[in-house]
Amino acid sequence: MNISRHHPRYLSLSVRERLTEALSVGIVVPQGLIAHGRGEAFDYLLGEKTSLSASKAMSVAAALLLTSNHPVISVNGNTVALVGADVVRLATLIGSPIEINLFHRSIRRERVLASYLRRLGARDVLGTTKKAQVTVSGIASLRRRVDVRGIGSADTVLIPLEDGDRAEALKRARKKVIAIDLNPLSRTSQVASVTIVDNVVRAIPALIRVVNRMHSMSRIELLRITRNFDNHKNIRRTLREMIEYLKGWQTN
Amino acid sequence: MNISRHHPRYLSLSVRERLTEALSVGIVVPQGLIAHGRGEAFDYLLGEKTSLSASKAMSVAAALLLTSNHPVISVNGNTVALVGADVVRLATLIGSPIEINLFHRSIRRERVLASYLRRLGARDVLGTTKKAQVTVSGIASLRRRVDVRGIGSADTVLIPLEDGDRAEALKRARKKVIAIDLNPLSRTSQVASVTIVDNVVRAIPALIRVVNRMHSMSRIELLRITRNFDNHKNIRRTLREMIEYLKGWQTN
Repeated sequence: MNISRHHPRYLSLSVRERLTEALSVGIVVPQGLIAHGRGEAFDYLLGEKTSLSASKAMSVAAALLLTSNHPVISVNGNTVALVGADVVRLATLIGSPIEINLFHRSIRRERVLASYLRRLGARDVLGTTKKAQVTVSGIASLRRRVDVRGIGSADTVLIPLEDGDRAEALKRARKKVIAIDLNPLSRTSQVASVTIVDNVVRAIPALIRVVNRMHSMSRIELLRITRNFDNHKNIRRTLREMIEYLKGWQTN
Repeated sequence: MNISRHHPRYLSLSVRERLTEALSVGIVVPQGLIAHGRGEAFDYLLGEKTSLSASKAMSVAAALLLTSNHPVISVNGNTVALVGADVVRLATLIGSPIEINLFHRSIRRERVLASYLRRLGARDVLGTTKKAQVTVSGIASLRRRVDVRGIGSADTVLIPLEDGDRAEALKRARKKVIAIDLNPLSRTSQVASVTIVDNVVRAIPALIRVVNRMHSMSRIELLRITRNFDNHKNIRRTLREMIEYLKGWQTN
């Protein structure tokens, strides 16, 4: 289908087209499309723009990534389809591996994702081999198996578009968890150390800009940013923004 | 994938499985899965139950269907996949045809949907033949073509899970439009004569119950119900309910 650039919903329609294509080549699964739709609805309640509270969370996330000893970016099919190139850029910038970790796991899909990421320039892609696997306890699905060189030994894990079970398990394993999730009420959002309630399409490029800006800051300054942050308070701020949006409609 | 009945999200997970199966047999298109996800998010903000304002809208919708000369139920892939059997039941009850009208139109898909509906017991399925087509003006997509025996001559059209363009065009064509849409802010919700903000999985069975209950009411009583209704006021009531839900979370 050809979408006119003049269509009021051009951007979200073209993102949908990208996911549909990713479905046809096996990067995304049908359930991923449903999850994307859920995100779209919450994004709508944010006016489809990065909120002040999300910007705040991004600063903290960037500082945390830059002060971690071993940060890892965990990706699923939707993340790779939507912002694969930006994830590779961010990983290069912070010197972290990218680990593929799928809810609907298959060796074929892992390989499709890994080769796509490598074509985009990724050097360190983990999660596709049965060697070097360790187990994160408390996860019912195959997602519990992680790479000992990646999530297994990470102190900070960036998890865009995650499921709640795994977010909780990573937190229990005493890792710092940075979540990107448009639903501020999700378990992932609630348990993460830093929750960025924003569309991943805007959040990853924005995170790259913040990391670039912070590269010259001292470790002490960065640590100060991470310490003066209350994630639940920040999420409540997002909820207030959504409430204001709905209230604005109420008077229409 | 086998979902445990004890999973806290069993119901929504099994609905997702049903849609994924419908995708594989060509009843649903990938974009339909994304649309379903959007609905899920709004349903979440309603606590996944039928609100008082939705019940109110259902009563008015039932009265409108029972007092119309030529009501038609318009269906797309998602509606057929999710509540096909209930749509057939409702159509029989109010003596209306079912017209297939797809955003992502193909002759093959129309035929798959029609034969599925007929297997479920539908007698009058329209929208699959090029004969008897008329055009509803103001719609960019192929959805503008409708059956002269169906939507073309209908005074009331029930449109579960509709796009805004067509809802507006039907309204301009001076038809009464009953929408079932979980997004109270959508154009469909805003332009409809009666908007039921509810999950179609709950709304169609509930509508059947209300129609059954009203069958013995006089035409005058039914007309009174349809006249004393302010759709925008009722939508604002739904918005208030969503705001209350979000506020409840804010204090958690």
